[in-house]
Amino acid sequence: MADEKAITRKSEDFDRWYTDVVRRAELADYAPVRGCMVIRPYGYALWERIQRALDDMIKRTGHENMYFPLLIPESFLQKEAEHVEGFAPEVAWVTHGGQRELEERLAIRPTSETIICSMFAEWIHSYRDLPVLINQWANIVRWEKRTRLFLRTTEFLWQEGHTFHETRAEAEEEVDRMLDCYRELAEEWLCLPVIPGRKTDAEKFAGAEYTLAIEAMMSDGWALQAGTSHFLGQNFTRAYGISFTDRDNAQQHPYQTSWGLSTRIIGGVIMGHGDDAGLVLPPRVAPVQAVVVPVVRSGDPEGTAAVDETCRRIESAAGEVRLRVDRRDGIRPGEKYAHWELRGVPLRITVGARDLATGRVTVTRRVDGESWTEPADGVAARLPELLEEAHRRTRARADRTLGERSVEARTLDDLRRAFAERPVFANVPFCERRACEETITGAAHALTIRVLRRDRSGEPGRCIACGEPASEVAVVARAY
Amino acid sequence: MADEKAITRKSEDFDRWYTDVVRRAELADYAPVRGCMVIRPYGYALWERIQRALDDMIKRTGHENMYFPLLIPESFLQKEAEHVEGFAPEVAWVTHGGQRELEERLAIRPTSETIICSMFAEWIHSYRDLPVLINQWANIVRWEKRTRLFLRTTEFLWQEGHTFHETRAEAEEEVDRMLDCYRELAEEWLCLPVIPGRKTDAEKFAGAEYTLAIEAMMSDGWALQAGTSHFLGQNFTRAYGISFTDRDNAQQHPYQTSWGLSTRIIGGVIMGHGDDAGLVLPPRVAPVQAVVVPVVRSGDPEGTAAVDETCRRIESAAGEVRLRVDRRDGIRPGEKYAHWELRGVPLRITVGARDLATGRVTVTRRVDGESWTEPADGVAARLPELLEEAHRRTRARADRTLGERSVEARTLDDLRRAFAERPVFANVPFCERRACEETITGAAHALTIRVLRRDRSGEPGRCIACGEPASEVAVVARAY
Repeated sequence: MADEKAITRKSEDFDRWYTDVVRRAELADYAPVRGCMVIRPYGYALWERIQRALDDMIKRTGHENMYFPLLIPESFLQKEAEHVEGFAPEVAWVTHGGQRELEERLAIRPTSETIICSMFAEWIHSYRDLPVLINQWANIVRWEKRTRLFLRTTEFLWQEGHTFHETRAEAEEEVDRMLDCYRELAEEWLCLPVIPGRKTDAEKFAGAEYTLAIEAMMSDGWALQAGTSHFLGQNFTRAYGISFTDRDNAQQHPYQTSWGLSTRIIGGVIMGHGDDAGLVLPPRVAPVQAVVVPVVRSGDPEGTAAVDETCRRIESAAGEVRLRVDRRDGIRPGEKYAHWELRGVPLRITVGARDLATGRVTVTRRVDGESWTEPADGVAARLPELLEEAHRRTRARADRTLGERSVEARTLDDLRRAFAERPVFANVPFCERRACEETITGAAHALTIRVLRRDRSGEPGRCIACGEPASEVAVVARAY
Repeated sequence: MADEKAITRKSEDFDRWYTDVVRRAELADYAPVRGCMVIRPYGYALWERIQRALDDMIKRTGHENMYFPLLIPESFLQKEAEHVEGFAPEVAWVTHGGQRELEERLAIRPTSETIICSMFAEWIHSYRDLPVLINQWANIVRWEKRTRLFLRTTEFLWQEGHTFHETRAEAEEEVDRMLDCYRELAEEWLCLPVIPGRKTDAEKFAGAEYTLAIEAMMSDGWALQAGTSHFLGQNFTRAYGISFTDRDNAQQHPYQTSWGLSTRIIGGVIMGHGDDAGLVLPPRVAPVQAVVVPVVRSGDPEGTAAVDETCRRIESAAGEVRLRVDRRDGIRPGEKYAHWELRGVPLRITVGARDLATGRVTVTRRVDGESWTEPADGVAARLPELLEEAHRRTRARADRTLGERSVEARTLDDLRRAFAERPVFANVPFCERRACEETITGAAHALTIRVLRRDRSGEPGRCIACGEPASEVAVVARAY
């Protein structure tokens, strides 16, 4: 099994396990450019499925795709003070083009609010031009200090939505609506239960009034921020001079939102579901949903013919299901099983002469390893149902992990005790003061406040740090 | 008609007409970054349709999508001598990242052969790893001196295919196969007849053994190179140290191809089909294939109700057809007609009370302005057929233009006379010598050899420049 030597065990070294899975399942690899990655065909096919699902939601909610330039003049970046302060340290600068030094440096976009605002300042005049509901799929560059495949790379792929509205209320609804699209993507497509909530001021987007996010729990109990939706208020529209004539003929600055989800989510899929054998892919986005492995014995031409014929019949009856028959020569069935387990294919159908003697094949479900037989004739038609069952079980297992690893903490001691045992999501009453945030995150190694939970906002309590009345419940966790 | 003031007439000033159409139909606009453009929703929707059609072809022919980094270390670019000489003058350089000067400058990719070769040097070991058939959709930056929306911009979007093969013959087949995909895209989807052929050595891709291209004729008789497919031989695989163990256990360098098609093709669609009223979009890629315009008279509530009801019925019966009902208030029908004509929508359905009295609606075809009535009940079901007819007529008109504007020239005088009248595609016998190429392109203002025609290669003749035997027929034209 030269091709498939064992990956590091997850329980042994989660970080090495992660890198092993990404590289050995051929999702991505390091590029010879600092902090950049190459997304390989299997990883890119997964991204294309995620893109398609999200793009459909973005269009269904009334947005249109556009494309804005990669390069942003330095002077544009500087118009919104908080924004430039937040992003300037991470910018890659173009200083020369066509063998000449440029008069003004150009930033490679670290996000596109600034260039988008500068264009819409020309296009928005009247309330009739609103709302503007647009999105772009693009590459982004941020000069990160420590990088990790998918999770944090110098360059990454994402979509960024940008909208402008007549009223604050309408813009705030939009922020909620798009966060809910991200929640739907994570939960319904990727089988990752998430906690939606608001970021603290310390953690919000540079230039936003507030930031909402969804936080997913990885299978080691750490958190991954999987998508963010920002209410920008009038911060940028003021700074960039975007105004419109409202229904009362007065000049107003529109209210703005932006929201983004990136290739980082692939890291979430890997760490949320993977196990010692490798990836476990959510069926709805798996590039290969079912793999058929023929098992034949040499010196059994009749059995071999029956196996081949059954494989062909399953293949031609697969319809919309993304199914592959692994007909590679010279590779033992065991190696093939390991190959597709590493790649997280949700279902394996083993077609062997012995089962076929009774008209059956063996189906094995990746997420829990369960195996059973199905009639060879009916298995292809059953696949959509079997994939749905695999989806439910993948989701249920992730729900269970989140449930088992969530704790309530009323005191800083509770919090310390919880993290002394293992990484968890600790729900703690929190008063939103910066000093208390520092007390909380300092209570144990590498703690962060992920979000103020949406579903528990307004819950009466006393801040875990200062004991004053608190009406928010913060999720405290270690985070990627 | 404030919204739709007339665009420059095409016959008056083709260049201004082009820019007017691009901006007023809201396909794209200039960005405040030198030579860059913003692709607006209508233009991007057109690009998405073109992408989808081409991506399907790329996958159907066995290729998988990947993603390689945007940034390429300077040392990588320099390994293939011809390549760096060709591209270095156009490169944008990143010199600073994260507030520090970089040790080595990074090029923003002007094309990705170099970074791709550096990765596949690690991944290709044996003939079993071949062929490698991959593609990426990406943004590209080339520091062009003169820029023009879609046709030549500092940044553009494209796909670039890259393949590695065991044998020269297999790689050459690939070069042909992908050129034929581009021909199919241009002809079957975009209604643009093209001439496939080989570029002269002076015009080939920097680093290629040879380059194939498809050339389309714009409606002013000028040429547009609409897609290129390169045979790279072993030039890059040698330079980047890519080798494999062949079937005889010997070390070999694989043969390589690359091929690309960009947002430039949108310029071809505009200039190939547009007219004085604006865009004429090929039905298979038009973001809106049919627009319904209700025509109602004030003081006719009964007629208005019937019109509204018919519009709703057509809308709900449109099925797969991309149909929009223009229900905008306070805009006269004439303005709506102009609005959608400018945007090139292939079919307009006018729903008015007078026609409805006899159960009919009026259909108007954008490409030739023909109008006729159809039964209101059946028109939605007829749309696919009517769109096919619009497709055929759009293609036939472009075929006619190409036919009428193609000439045979046997002497340099023939050539001069032809171009003295108007821009044409002149077919001339050509011996392939560089000196003769210069004589030919110097015969009149701004001539270029577009391609050596594929369909007439081997035709016996005498070079139009030197009179020596020639076996290639060159297409001479002015080009965008």
